[in-house]
Amino acid sequence: MIVIRSTAELRRVLAEPRAQGKSIGYVPTMGALHEGHLALVREAKVRDDVVVASIFVNPLQFAPNEDFDTYPRDEERDLALCEKVAADIAWLPTADELFPPGFGLTVAVPRLSGVLCGEGRPTHFAGVTTEMSKILILLAPTAVYLGEKDFQQLVVLRAMVRDLGLPLEVRAVPTVRERDGLALSSRNAYLAEAERPVAAALFRVLSELAPKLRADTGAVAAVLAEGRAALTEAGVRRIDYLELVDGETLEPVSTVGSGNRLVAAIWVGSTRLIDNVAV
Amino acid sequence: MIVIRSTAELRRVLAEPRAQGKSIGYVPTMGALHEGHLALVREAKVRDDVVVASIFVNPLQFAPNEDFDTYPRDEERDLALCEKVAADIAWLPTADELFPPGFGLTVAVPRLSGVLCGEGRPTHFAGVTTEMSKILILLAPTAVYLGEKDFQQLVVLRAMVRDLGLPLEVRAVPTVRERDGLALSSRNAYLAEAERPVAAALFRVLSELAPKLRADTGAVAAVLAEGRAALTEAGVRRIDYLELVDGETLEPVSTVGSGNRLVAAIWVGSTRLIDNVAV
Repeated sequence: MIVIRSTAELRRVLAEPRAQGKSIGYVPTMGALHEGHLALVREAKVRDDVVVASIFVNPLQFAPNEDFDTYPRDEERDLALCEKVAADIAWLPTADELFPPGFGLTVAVPRLSGVLCGEGRPTHFAGVTTEMSKILILLAPTAVYLGEKDFQQLVVLRAMVRDLGLPLEVRAVPTVRERDGLALSSRNAYLAEAERPVAAALFRVLSELAPKLRADTGAVAAVLAEGRAALTEAGVRRIDYLELVDGETLEPVSTVGSGNRLVAAIWVGSTRLIDNVAV
Repeated sequence: MIVIRSTAELRRVLAEPRAQGKSIGYVPTMGALHEGHLALVREAKVRDDVVVASIFVNPLQFAPNEDFDTYPRDEERDLALCEKVAADIAWLPTADELFPPGFGLTVAVPRLSGVLCGEGRPTHFAGVTTEMSKILILLAPTAVYLGEKDFQQLVVLRAMVRDLGLPLEVRAVPTVRERDGLALSSRNAYLAEAERPVAAALFRVLSELAPKLRADTGAVAAVLAEGRAALTEAGVRRIDYLELVDGETLEPVSTVGSGNRLVAAIWVGSTRLIDNVAV
């Protein structure tokens, strides 16, 4: 595995496989790697010739009151994990190079970025799309691999890639979970032991609601109300949202249809957790 | 000259010269071509192997109250002019293909887009950068040619290209003028005969102010006030702005320095005119 820090070196190293027509799979991460990230790399290894995993805590996607400074960072461990799953290139870009002084660009998909997680984090997705547009243009991969766990991010980035006309595929990889169903997330490290059962209720409740929605497609409001009650019952004090949405437009739906997604964001103590299931 | 309407055909036609390492020069226009546009094509012909000129009235850069519907369009005449200056490809994209239903992307450089012309046209430059980012990614030219007459557009697009990291050069071409100094613009067609002397005052005043600013670098405010008075004297009823700005940040400067630009926007009757000179 080659560890690369500069964009010039990245371009240089990728020039040869690119000229040979080899496919390049890209796995963007913010580090603090877990099995969810590794599943992305494994999938990319199966489908592409050269796999680049990036580790970069993107400052643009954090609001001033969020956890940019305390976001877990462990470069040595992350690089060992990338090596373990045989990533070909670990790329550690620097903010100085991606966003040099004077950087003033914003790339956004406003219609998809203000709803759901965007309501409480109004600048978050523009931070993601601004960074990713720059990286995808620079790297020009054949495909980018994204976890389904961050479902809104997946939808927003799909729309960005489509609307910019970037010649690459966005490939979604199923969420990897703990044995109790909790979706793997770097932020799970913030959870206290006693909070784990409350956190695990999120996926359990979503999993219970999905078949109910399929069974009674007109009962969306009632089933969602039941879900909110179940989360509260399980000890969740704050629910940012629990919604059934269209899987492309993210608009709430009142009758179950194809491609719908049941999405939720809750707080457990001071940790915000998100999850989603297909319906 | 090949006339192309679909993006698929454009890609197909450019594949061969691109594979041969030929350079591709791109001249974006909204049609209603004049000698200013033709100067861009001529410059591209000198510097690049293949020259693509596009004719497309970009709907994103017009506000609802602006002249999108009445903007001058004459495809036959425009194609004849492209042919005359030996453009290799005339590309007439369609809004349906560039901005299909569901298109929701915004690419912007907010810091540079809200000042000067952006004060009165708050969505204009985001419309330009959104369209141009998509086109530049699709076309992947070696260089794009822009007129200095739309100075803010030039600065905004330079910043967009730099911040997105698009691998191409932005080449500025000097403004082409009528004999009375009026900068060529498709919107000059809106001017009545009697308005022409008033319109011509714009460049005359800018040209008078520039040496005064160079001669007395601390007298910016006084020289600009003198310029506003001269424009009013010449019959200009409305001045949107007359400013000395930094040529990269577009911020007003109070002492003349290198790279400064004297920029102005005025109204003559119901026609808005812009112009600028180096200081």
